[in-house]
Amino acid sequence: MEKSKADNNNENRESDLLIGRNAVFEAIKSGREIDTVFVARGERSGSIGPIIGKAKERGIVVKDVDRRKLDAICGGSNHQGIAAKAAVHEYSDIDDMLSLAAEKGEKPFLIICDEIEDPHNLGAIIRSADACGAHGVIIPKRRGVSLTYAVGKVSAGAVEYVPVARVSNLAQTIDSLKEKGLWIYGADMDGERWDSVKYDGAVALVIGSEGRGISRLIKEKCDFIVSLPMRGRINSLNASVAAGILMYEVVKYR
Amino acid sequence: MEKSKADNNNENRESDLLIGRNAVFEAIKSGREIDTVFVARGERSGSIGPIIGKAKERGIVVKDVDRRKLDAICGGSNHQGIAAKAAVHEYSDIDDMLSLAAEKGEKPFLIICDEIEDPHNLGAIIRSADACGAHGVIIPKRRGVSLTYAVGKVSAGAVEYVPVARVSNLAQTIDSLKEKGLWIYGADMDGERWDSVKYDGAVALVIGSEGRGISRLIKEKCDFIVSLPMRGRINSLNASVAAGILMYEVVKYR
Repeated sequence: MEKSKADNNNENRESDLLIGRNAVFEAIKSGREIDTVFVARGERSGSIGPIIGKAKERGIVVKDVDRRKLDAICGGSNHQGIAAKAAVHEYSDIDDMLSLAAEKGEKPFLIICDEIEDPHNLGAIIRSADACGAHGVIIPKRRGVSLTYAVGKVSAGAVEYVPVARVSNLAQTIDSLKEKGLWIYGADMDGERWDSVKYDGAVALVIGSEGRGISRLIKEKCDFIVSLPMRGRINSLNASVAAGILMYEVVKYR
Repeated sequence: MEKSKADNNNENRESDLLIGRNAVFEAIKSGREIDTVFVARGERSGSIGPIIGKAKERGIVVKDVDRRKLDAICGGSNHQGIAAKAAVHEYSDIDDMLSLAAEKGEKPFLIICDEIEDPHNLGAIIRSADACGAHGVIIPKRRGVSLTYAVGKVSAGAVEYVPVARVSNLAQTIDSLKEKGLWIYGADMDGERWDSVKYDGAVALVIGSEGRGISRLIKEKCDFIVSLPMRGRINSLNASVAAGILMYEVVKYR
């Protein structure tokens, strides 16, 4: 009995899913780090309006989703039209990352994830970002995985140390980084060989999504497209492995 | 109805778990690729003896496990003291890998996994091995993860192309590779910086387990210990990311 009780407590502490109006509202009001609030599309009855209002006030991402998707997220529990995922760590912003680089007297080195979907990949990328001394990881607000508990676990704790920023518009963010003197390197096919390019300035490395690579608009904004030669039959590497290889190529210049 | 039927078929084809005496015996007799047969410790009654005999005849690994572990593997199903995991692909041997290198007119390039435990890592390592043109991956017979369906899935199909050999004694295998002219590079802490070493001969790259790194005996057999600098707070990279970085360092010499 004791064991099972302990297990339950542990489960509650580890769970990042908040289901139903009360659970979501209390979590938002308590100041807990919330990754995303999911609302059934069209659902605005009763307390849903005030909950959404409070979430937006706190700058929390609110996503409208199909009711069936919400059912799936909640594993069939009665969600009353709303659920939320807690974040494993608070988000940072890009100015903080650049300040961090300046404090350390280092040229900025950022990783931009263009819609990474697998928590294993984002977690491993954050872990590699810590290891290679990058100043932060940037992810989009609306698509791809964010700082879920699964990501935190795979990162082996690196989410505690690596600033992660979430931005509404990745293309605008890249424009702004270019204005601040960063060179943008996109990892994609048909680019220059990864080890033929110099990474001796301020670097932002763009890693594309698992299935589609870097989106066209983002790719056009890159100063360099760098590629890892594929000598076998499969035409791509795991996204976190490719990211790690490129990050350590940058390390050679630091 | 049609959809559900198709789903069921698919599920059956994808399942790698065989539970109970008849299922295991039939699979062994049919010639299906079996990764491991698990037998409840001490269980030798009835048909268990002949099943183990047939498995050994086919060179299949048979592991004695606690009955509770077997219960867990089988999710509580009635296993009659025996279960088996099918392999996603047949195993190869090291001589075939060396022949493959010779046929291609390339210096041998092998990856040795010293007790990798996470299917995500082994799958990603096999995918990277394909990408970087390695001639094979070597894993130990008794410890660590093997060619399960999960590994096959993470490998993105690379298990179909990359030979994987399973050996009883990794230390002896390394001795034998050294006699055949391969240089053994172990990835571990406190070695030479990874990019300060030349990888211009026949290379075997040893990747240690997630928790403990390379075992002491294996480490002593390495010609070089190479390390990736850790510039952050976490003291290691994900095993498949570290493997990928080192594999592409070798690619620079090919």
